[in-house]
Amino acid sequence: MEQVCVLGAGSTKYGKLEDSISDITVQASVDAIDSAGIEPREIGAGYISNVFGVADKQVHLGPVIMSNLGIPERPSLSIESACGSGSASFREAFANVAAGFYDAVLVAGTEKVTHTGTEWTTTYFSYCSDFFYEGQAGASFPGLFASMARAYLNEFKATEEDFARVAVKNHENGLLNPKAHLQKKITIDDVMASAVVASPLKLYDCCPFSDGASSVILCSEKFAKEHGGEYIRVTGSGRGGSSAALQGREQMTTIPSTRIAAEQAYKMAGVGPKDIDFAEVHDCFTIAEIVDTEDLGFFEKGKGVAAVREDATSRGGEIPINPSGGLKSKGHPIGATGVGQVVEVYDQLTGKAGQRTVKGATTGLTHNFGATGASCAVHIFQSV
Amino acid sequence: MEQVCVLGAGSTKYGKLEDSISDITVQASVDAIDSAGIEPREIGAGYISNVFGVADKQVHLGPVIMSNLGIPERPSLSIESACGSGSASFREAFANVAAGFYDAVLVAGTEKVTHTGTEWTTTYFSYCSDFFYEGQAGASFPGLFASMARAYLNEFKATEEDFARVAVKNHENGLLNPKAHLQKKITIDDVMASAVVASPLKLYDCCPFSDGASSVILCSEKFAKEHGGEYIRVTGSGRGGSSAALQGREQMTTIPSTRIAAEQAYKMAGVGPKDIDFAEVHDCFTIAEIVDTEDLGFFEKGKGVAAVREDATSRGGEIPINPSGGLKSKGHPIGATGVGQVVEVYDQLTGKAGQRTVKGATTGLTHNFGATGASCAVHIFQSV
Repeated sequence: MEQVCVLGAGSTKYGKLEDSISDITVQASVDAIDSAGIEPREIGAGYISNVFGVADKQVHLGPVIMSNLGIPERPSLSIESACGSGSASFREAFANVAAGFYDAVLVAGTEKVTHTGTEWTTTYFSYCSDFFYEGQAGASFPGLFASMARAYLNEFKATEEDFARVAVKNHENGLLNPKAHLQKKITIDDVMASAVVASPLKLYDCCPFSDGASSVILCSEKFAKEHGGEYIRVTGSGRGGSSAALQGREQMTTIPSTRIAAEQAYKMAGVGPKDIDFAEVHDCFTIAEIVDTEDLGFFEKGKGVAAVREDATSRGGEIPINPSGGLKSKGHPIGATGVGQVVEVYDQLTGKAGQRTVKGATTGLTHNFGATGASCAVHIFQSV
Repeated sequence: MEQVCVLGAGSTKYGKLEDSISDITVQASVDAIDSAGIEPREIGAGYISNVFGVADKQVHLGPVIMSNLGIPERPSLSIESACGSGSASFREAFANVAAGFYDAVLVAGTEKVTHTGTEWTTTYFSYCSDFFYEGQAGASFPGLFASMARAYLNEFKATEEDFARVAVKNHENGLLNPKAHLQKKITIDDVMASAVVASPLKLYDCCPFSDGASSVILCSEKFAKEHGGEYIRVTGSGRGGSSAALQGREQMTTIPSTRIAAEQAYKMAGVGPKDIDFAEVHDCFTIAEIVDTEDLGFFEKGKGVAAVREDATSRGGEIPINPSGGLKSKGHPIGATGVGQVVEVYDQLTGKAGQRTVKGATTGLTHNFGATGASCAVHIFQSV
C-alpha cells in the first residue's frame, strides 16, 4: 500500500452563493490545485461528492468539472452518502491512491441548495432518511435529532443549556474563519431564546443550509515529495453503517457507525483517542457533537456535556473540537462538508489556520456522517 | 493485487415496476446473494449506483439496502455517473477488492423513474448533460445523439436503415431474455415508420425509460473458491472521460472516453478486441452501438454499419453484440444498466443464458457510458 497524503486544499466561502454548482466546484478545485503546486494534467481522476445536483440542474458533475479544468479525458464520478458524502468520496479516493491505481486525484465536494428555499430543501433532505419509515411520517432531521437530544436529557445529567454551549463555542471558532457561513458571536441566552425547531432543539442548535465547495489533492507520498509542496499524511481511514431508520437502533444516544469507523481508523493509524490533538466532527445539531465526541472515545458516554461545560473542547482545551466553526458556524453544504473538514485539518497542520490555529497540533481527526449516522467515515491525519 | 471475481448475480425484470426503489434493489440483491451461495453477513460493503433517487423520494440508498439485508453496520455509498453509474460503481468495488480492503462486496445498480412520466424523466435526464451548454439550450439526449447520427451519415457510407438493423437485432435477442423490457419482434420497416424523435433518429432507434435493479457479488478469488459457487474472473478494468459537452470534441463520430477505457482494460487483461467472444455495449440509441463497436476496436471506423448488415454482430456472428437485448430491448434503468451488463456476462459465462447463449464463449466485455460518453468504463471477464 502507498502512503497517502493531502498535498493541497481549497474552499469557497460557505453560505449563500450566487455562482452555479459547477462554477463553485471549479473555484475550490483550482484553489486546491494551486495550493498543491501541480498542473491539472497531473491529476489522474476526479472524485466528486454531491447530493442534490438536481437543485441546480446539473448531475453527472464529474465530466463538467474535469472539462472546465482542461482535463476532460480523465475519469471521474460522483459519490453520495447524504451529509456524509464528502468523507465517503475521500475514502474512495484514499483507497484508489493507496492501491496504486492513481498517483494523484482531485477530491471535490459541493452543494448548491439555498436558492431553492427552506421548504424545498427540508423536503429534499428528508429523502436522505429511511423515507419509508421516517420521511413520509414527517420525521425530518430536526425531529430525529430532537429525539436523540430528548433521550440524552433523559438518560444523562444534561440540560438544554449544555447543548447551547456547543453552539456558542463553535460560533466563537467560526468568527475566526473567513470562509464561515455564520460569522456571528452568540450567547447561551441567544440560543435559549431562539425559536423552537423541534423541542428540545432551538434554531441556534441547528446548522444552517449552506452552499459551498471544498477540494483537496490526494496523492502518494512519492508524488508529494517530488512536487515539493506542503503535505500531511492520511494515517487512518474507517467506514461504518447503522440502521438507516433511527427506530432500528437499540440506543438513541450512540451512533454505531461512528464507533465502527473510529475503531478501524484508530487501528489503521496505530493511535487512540488520546493521541488526537483536535477533531472536526459532524455537528449538524448541537446534540450530535456531544454524541460524536463520546462515540469517538474522547469522553465516556454521558460525559460529553461536562467536557463542554469545562471548556475541554474549546480551542485552548484538552481536545479542541471543530476549530473551523464546524457545521454549526462554518456551515453545512452537505456534499462538501466531509471534504471541508479535511481542508481545515490541512490548514491546521500546515500553519495556514491563522488566528484559529490549535497550537502544537500534529494529529487531527475528521468525522462525518450521513443522515442520523446511517453512514459514517472517520479519517486520521498526521503532519510530516 | 487480489484476482477479483464475480460470484453471483441477480436482476429484477426491467420495465415499468410497481415496487419502491428500495424494494427492487433489495430483490435484485437477495437474488445475487442467493446465486453466490453466501450469507449477507459475509458482505463487507455495499456499492450502490443510482441517478434519480429523488424521483422515488429515497437518496442515501446504501444504508436502507444494507439495513433491509440485515447488515446495517456495513459501510455503503452511492455512485453516480449518469447512465454510466453502474460501471463506475462496479469499478470502485473492483478497486477495493483488488486492493484487499474487502473480501466480498455487493454491487447494486437501481433506478425507478417511469412513474414520474416522460416529460419529467426527459427533463431530469437532461441534467446529466453539460447543462450550461446543452440542457438549457434544449439539447436533450435524443437531439445530441441525433447530431452524432447525422455526422455519421455525412461522414461514412451509411443509411438510416443501417441504424434500424441494430434495433431489429437487439429486439431479436431481447425476445429470448425473460427480464427484458421490450419483448417484441420488430422489422426494419417498423423502425423506419416509427415517429421521428430527433431526425434521423426515430422512436425505435431509442431505448426506453425503464425501472429495474441489478446486483452482483464481487470478491477475491480466494473467497470465491472457499464458497464453492460458480464464478468468473474480472481480468480488465478501464475508465476514461470526454469533454462533457459534445461541442467540445474534435469529432462527433467517436467517443474518446470509450477508447481510453478500452485501452486500459485490454492492457490490464492482456488481450485485444479479437479475443473478445461477445460484448454488452451502451446502445442507448442505435447510432451509439455502431460508434461503440468501432471505438472498442471490433471494427474499423466507418465499418460498423457494414458489420451489422453482414450479421457480424448477431448472436451467431463473428462478435455478438448485446446478446441480452441491450439497452434498446432489455431496457435502460440508468443507475442499473452497467451492473445489468455484468449480470448478462455472468449468466453467459456460467451457462445460465438459456436460448440466448453465445456458444463457446469464454471472454466477455462490458461497455457502459454516461451522457454522450462524457464518462465511460470498460470491463473484461473470463470464465475460469
